[in-house]
Amino acid sequence: MTTVKLEEIVSLCKRRGFIYQGSEIYGGLAGTWDYGPLGAQLKRNIVNEWLNYFVDSRDDMYLIDSAIIMNPKVWQASGHVDTFSDPLVECSNCHNRFRADKIDTAKCPSCGKENTFGEPRQFNLMFRTNVGPLEDENSLTYLRPELAQGMFVDYKNIIDTFYPDLPFGIAQVGRAFRNEIAPRDFIFRSRELEIMEFEYFIRESDWEENFEQWRDGIHGWFEKIGLDKDRIKEVEVLEGDRAHYSKRTIDFYYDSPTLGFDEIGGLAYRTDFDLKNHQDKSGKNLEYRPKDGSDPFIPHVIEPTFGVDRYFLAVISNAYRIDEVNGEKRNYLQLPKHLAPVKIAVFPLLKNKPELTDKAKEIYNKLREEFGQVIWDDNGNIGKRYRRQDEIGTPYCITIDFETLDDKCVTLRDRDTTEQQRIPIEHIIDTIKSSL
Amino acid sequence: MTTVKLEEIVSLCKRRGFIYQGSEIYGGLAGTWDYGPLGAQLKRNIVNEWLNYFVDSRDDMYLIDSAIIMNPKVWQASGHVDTFSDPLVECSNCHNRFRADKIDTAKCPSCGKENTFGEPRQFNLMFRTNVGPLEDENSLTYLRPELAQGMFVDYKNIIDTFYPDLPFGIAQVGRAFRNEIAPRDFIFRSRELEIMEFEYFIRESDWEENFEQWRDGIHGWFEKIGLDKDRIKEVEVLEGDRAHYSKRTIDFYYDSPTLGFDEIGGLAYRTDFDLKNHQDKSGKNLEYRPKDGSDPFIPHVIEPTFGVDRYFLAVISNAYRIDEVNGEKRNYLQLPKHLAPVKIAVFPLLKNKPELTDKAKEIYNKLREEFGQVIWDDNGNIGKRYRRQDEIGTPYCITIDFETLDDKCVTLRDRDTTEQQRIPIEHIIDTIKSSL
Repeated sequence: MTTVKLEEIVSLCKRRGFIYQGSEIYGGLAGTWDYGPLGAQLKRNIVNEWLNYFVDSRDDMYLIDSAIIMNPKVWQASGHVDTFSDPLVECSNCHNRFRADKIDTAKCPSCGKENTFGEPRQFNLMFRTNVGPLEDENSLTYLRPELAQGMFVDYKNIIDTFYPDLPFGIAQVGRAFRNEIAPRDFIFRSRELEIMEFEYFIRESDWEENFEQWRDGIHGWFEKIGLDKDRIKEVEVLEGDRAHYSKRTIDFYYDSPTLGFDEIGGLAYRTDFDLKNHQDKSGKNLEYRPKDGSDPFIPHVIEPTFGVDRYFLAVISNAYRIDEVNGEKRNYLQLPKHLAPVKIAVFPLLKNKPELTDKAKEIYNKLREEFGQVIWDDNGNIGKRYRRQDEIGTPYCITIDFETLDDKCVTLRDRDTTEQQRIPIEHIIDTIKSSL
Repeated sequence: MTTVKLEEIVSLCKRRGFIYQGSEIYGGLAGTWDYGPLGAQLKRNIVNEWLNYFVDSRDDMYLIDSAIIMNPKVWQASGHVDTFSDPLVECSNCHNRFRADKIDTAKCPSCGKENTFGEPRQFNLMFRTNVGPLEDENSLTYLRPELAQGMFVDYKNIIDTFYPDLPFGIAQVGRAFRNEIAPRDFIFRSRELEIMEFEYFIRESDWEENFEQWRDGIHGWFEKIGLDKDRIKEVEVLEGDRAHYSKRTIDFYYDSPTLGFDEIGGLAYRTDFDLKNHQDKSGKNLEYRPKDGSDPFIPHVIEPTFGVDRYFLAVISNAYRIDEVNGEKRNYLQLPKHLAPVKIAVFPLLKNKPELTDKAKEIYNKLREEFGQVIWDDNGNIGKRYRRQDEIGTPYCITIDFETLDDKCVTLRDRDTTEQQRIPIEHIIDTIKSSL
């Protein structure tokens, strides 16, 4: 397998406007990242694929958009206040802080001094804030560290307003926050992340069948966004390592060219743990009432989770290629065409010839109307423009030259093969459409 | 003008799954709301319209997605730490708190006692949180109360990576947080809100022209989402009332059937205030370098802002109708068809006749593939199903009955006129398409 240094991806992302450091002009803020124009579009394409695959194309999914700040009782009931923490140690010499489970605590990895760590303390990863004008324990709450509780808390409203048959799912895409002790690996472990997730409500007796169904669904999703089947590894999480609510969990690892095998998503059987706790703590009846009049019960839950940023990193790392064209090194992104943030770039051969630019504009406008994600580039020689588009993964470049004015053909150039072909203007849309 | 009580809208939104109180099973959390399935879809349709109108259909807009938690220096430079506050008073008798500028402080509006208020104190509306394992002044930062600073902070990266010509815009849609002293009026003034916004960078000399252009653009947007031209009022904000950064601001008020005239969006000329401050405070050069080699300068900025939740409330309040059909009262939502969360509902006349449900499923699947937002309803008599769809604003209902099996026609029923017509199955898609 070709490996790629993470720094190369970070550098490409910054240089070409995919991802910038958060608050960069102020020296950044550790663990935060801003998606620039190309990154925002690529992310949007990934999220839309997910929505299409798991939500819009199905009859049994309810998409919601719940608040990031919730009543703190939610996080008490869910167990997050008590257990969503990492063991923290501080070096008594250099005062750097570490996750005790990630280092050898015999010797400080920062200053090198031995025996500088005391007992780890449990550090809760939820960001704290206060709601309302008084800052005290009564107004204290948290930024959500996951989306799932939004679905559980709204579950009662959904069954009361939509009377869905079991099984059904409640889905959501949105921001979550984790006050990581040591954010690392670019957008892989950051303090502000985007999650796509659904809770799938089932009868307890059907859990294994549904678990298998969504296991397949997750593999289908990998395929959908062009990740390599052979690089996916399922890791069965053993009992002692599973989250407190789970009776079975599979972590999905992807062997990315930058990070190697690392966790990219998960599938958990959460049992009836969450709904039961919320029923106990809220005093509301959260039972599901079957339409056939049989006894009400608390449904069980299967939860597939997807980290948008991790998928983004996998997709872009995976697409990173270096080859040689006419003896010159070429960097390009072999992004799946349907995910590429720019589908087509339109080049007038020269920018100061109105007959060329007018024609090119006409073609550009038509393509833009059809494909949306189309850009104009009239800067520098055509070879340079190809390199620029290659580097951001644009599948097609179209050049309008003087011949175009006579033969009504353009040069269509393919990102992956670098092959160029002359095609009639009237065939551009169909040719590209059939391949996207 | 017909007026509608806000409570009727709140009740409809809850009953039919548009909007639920945030953390409702725990008694809620003041100023937070969850969008249920129909609300999430309507919101998504509004946001997509906005993106289409202001971003995707234009060549000069750069869409970004920046972090919610930023370096606190951003909020010092922007003036938010010093000035983003409301005057707070507390009643010494009942201890309720109020915005001093919103009440007559002679007598407490809650307990009725006189002279119970002292001098107001300035209460900063930014939510505070700490980043990293230590809770002290060095780790203190804020949840963003607006999106604009994300665009200003990323401006340098954008000009360095995309070399845009002036004028150009940086756009963003996302969550913002304001720790309101008194959240009010449903989703109109909440603590967690969604904003659509762009900063449009211009030469100072062009500010008036650009201001007028975006003033028109905002009116175009009102039209796009079906808000009534005659109910829009522009309010010129006078010098003493304008935000500290603005040289001219127009607030856009909409006369909604629930709240009457209230602010729904704004257009501000922010001058070079923000970029200049960020240049001063960050020490980075934020000048724009014209490609013709002329002198670099700090661009000026025009900013149109749109509150998603406020537009949502305007759209739904505006659509609320009560009329009479065959002597019976009917509630319906006359939503613009392109915004309606459900476009078509498909009804098999009876649910226990496979010949009907098979045919209906076939039609349903085709429509779903074409229009996406299509639902199935086989519950209760057709009249009841019409009422249910009317109440959520579904433009079209299609009934498959026994005759359908012979004449290959269905009954197409129009939400607004309640008229029903028989049309051939093969014409359904075209008929609906032409009217959406």
